[in-house]
Amino acid sequence: MIDFITFCDYAGTFAFAVSGMRLASAKKFDWFGAYVVGAVTAVGGGTIRDVLLGATPFWMTQASYMVITAFSLLFVAVFRKYVIRMNNTLFVFDAIGLGFFTVVGLAKTLEYGFPMWVAIIMGTITGAFGGMLRDTLINEVPLIFRKDIYASACVVGGLIYYACQFTAMPPELVQFVAAASVFVTRAIAVHYHISLPVLKGEE
Amino acid sequence: MIDFITFCDYAGTFAFAVSGMRLASAKKFDWFGAYVVGAVTAVGGGTIRDVLLGATPFWMTQASYMVITAFSLLFVAVFRKYVIRMNNTLFVFDAIGLGFFTVVGLAKTLEYGFPMWVAIIMGTITGAFGGMLRDTLINEVPLIFRKDIYASACVVGGLIYYACQFTAMPPELVQFVAAASVFVTRAIAVHYHISLPVLKGEE
Amino acid sequence: MIDFITFCDYAGTFAFAVSGMRLASAKKFDWFGAYVVGAVTAVGGGTIRDVLLGATPFWMTQASYMVITAFSLLFVAVFRKYVIRMNNTLFVFDAIGLGFFTVVGLAKTLEYGFPMWVAIIMGTITGAFGGMLRDTLINEVPLIFRKDIYASACVVGGLIYYACQFTAMPPELVQFVAAASVFVTRAIAVHYHISLPVLKGEE
Repeated sequence: MIDFITFCDYAGTFAFAVSGMRLASAKKFDWFGAYVVGAVTAVGGGTIRDVLLGATPFWMTQASYMVITAFSLLFVAVFRKYVIRMNNTLFVFDAIGLGFFTVVGLAKTLEYGFPMWVAIIMGTITGAFGGMLRDTLINEVPLIFRKDIYASACVVGGLIYYACQFTAMPPELVQFVAAASVFVTRAIAVHYHISLPVLKGEE
Repeated sequence: MIDFITFCDYAGTFAFAVSGMRLASAKKFDWFGAYVVGAVTAVGGGTIRDVLLGATPFWMTQASYMVITAFSLLFVAVFRKYVIRMNNTLFVFDAIGLGFFTVVGLAKTLEYGFPMWVAIIMGTITGAFGGMLRDTLINEVPLIFRKDIYASACVVGGLIYYACQFTAMPPELVQFVAAASVFVTRAIAVHYHISLPVLKGEE
Repeated sequence: MIDFITFCDYAGTFAFAVSGMRLASAKKFDWFGAYVVGAVTAVGGGTIRDVLLGATPFWMTQASYMVITAFSLLFVAVFRKYVIRMNNTLFVFDAIGLGFFTVVGLAKTLEYGFPMWVAIIMGTITGAFGGMLRDTLINEVPLIFRKDIYASACVVGGLIYYACQFTAMPPELVQFVAAASVFVTRAIAVHYHISLPVLKGEE
């Protein structure tokens, strides 16, 4: 059986890829295009992080991400009538992925010797920039900048991660608490329809 | 006289750059903007590949790509009334470029020690992502995800390349066969109006 | 007191970030989204340059850029009724930033051992591609490709920088002259409404 960490990784990849494919299908993309958008949504944030860190992009050293993306495509194509009924499950998976990816980004950046504020930015990029690339590819204004708490949940997770450094908590627990805080922030925001205020400009 | 390899490289660069500039001119870009879009179309795919591989982008070590892009701009500006009549030639050059760039991406990725599945992805990125960046820059939904067989022809080329590894064919012949298969796939798809099926979503 | 170099760097970062945030607020982005667009506008060009050069992105080694971006957000939010009256100041700061960033891009690329033509391209990328990313993020056709002299002012600066290599001028003076030439080119172009010609295409 796969362990908890792997489950979070795969569930998040799946949910991110499905979110890209659903939007791609709404834009009449073909199967291949939908696969590309799904893959970019799933691994795009981590790829930007790795390029900025000077690391080999994570998905190039392990085939599982591209395989899960293929599985997501099959899922969207075969179960398309049921996907909409699975919205709650997909939301949970997406929020798990958001928390998990954020923590992976935080930990990897610190490992590379960067200070905490860079790690918080990289955690946010890992979690949220895949969705930004997705919206750019399908030619829409990025949703993550306008609706609900999404990217800012990653910042919350990063700050919690930072705060936990001052406790005696073991690293694994810190990571779990930070990921959970992203998940909970996201769930509360969506449940109570909490959004950040719009930046008011000159009229 | 330039050799066959160099001809394919230059013809592809030229056709890719021209495709970017034609779309840029339809959007009322100025000369400089058209040059940038042409250059991004021509070298964008290979640049993404090189950044992901951790290599110095290929066009930074040899001036020919930027020179050919300049030549393409002159061509589009001076012969603009005749460009439309040259559609068939440009299609052939574009398909040559697609095949050639795919194989360059495949070979370079294997050289860097990555497995075949990464090489197939990188071949596709090299061939098709310049066009994706082009469409993002001119603010259109990427055409390659919706029309004809384009990016998927690169995948076909990659699979043929892989299959040839199990034969006794010399490397040069493998590369030629793979590039030719991209070209032929693309030509057949356009001639018979073959497209991939659209991914059907929830209504 | 901060020195002249630091002033140019900070003024440019501020003006670039504000330009991104104003456009983001026009698109109803939330505070977080506006911050991201501002940051991408301010550091995006230099980040692309550093990724292409294989360097660690400059803003990851010094917190000032993200701090100035935060200050810009506060400025846009608090003084939003007065921002429009500050258009002239912001234009001057933006043009200072354009000149300064161009020269930083030129000098860094030469330091990395690349030839002058690569440096001129990188200077232009450093100065102008942040604005290009900004327009892509807010889902508009990049303005820099269609209006006034903007990116091409960076090329002028690069050519002046190149010409100065054949004189006995000390490096600091060369850099100042090149940056000033970008500034002056930009100011003249806007004052006299000089634009590059649009690339005419097939009708």
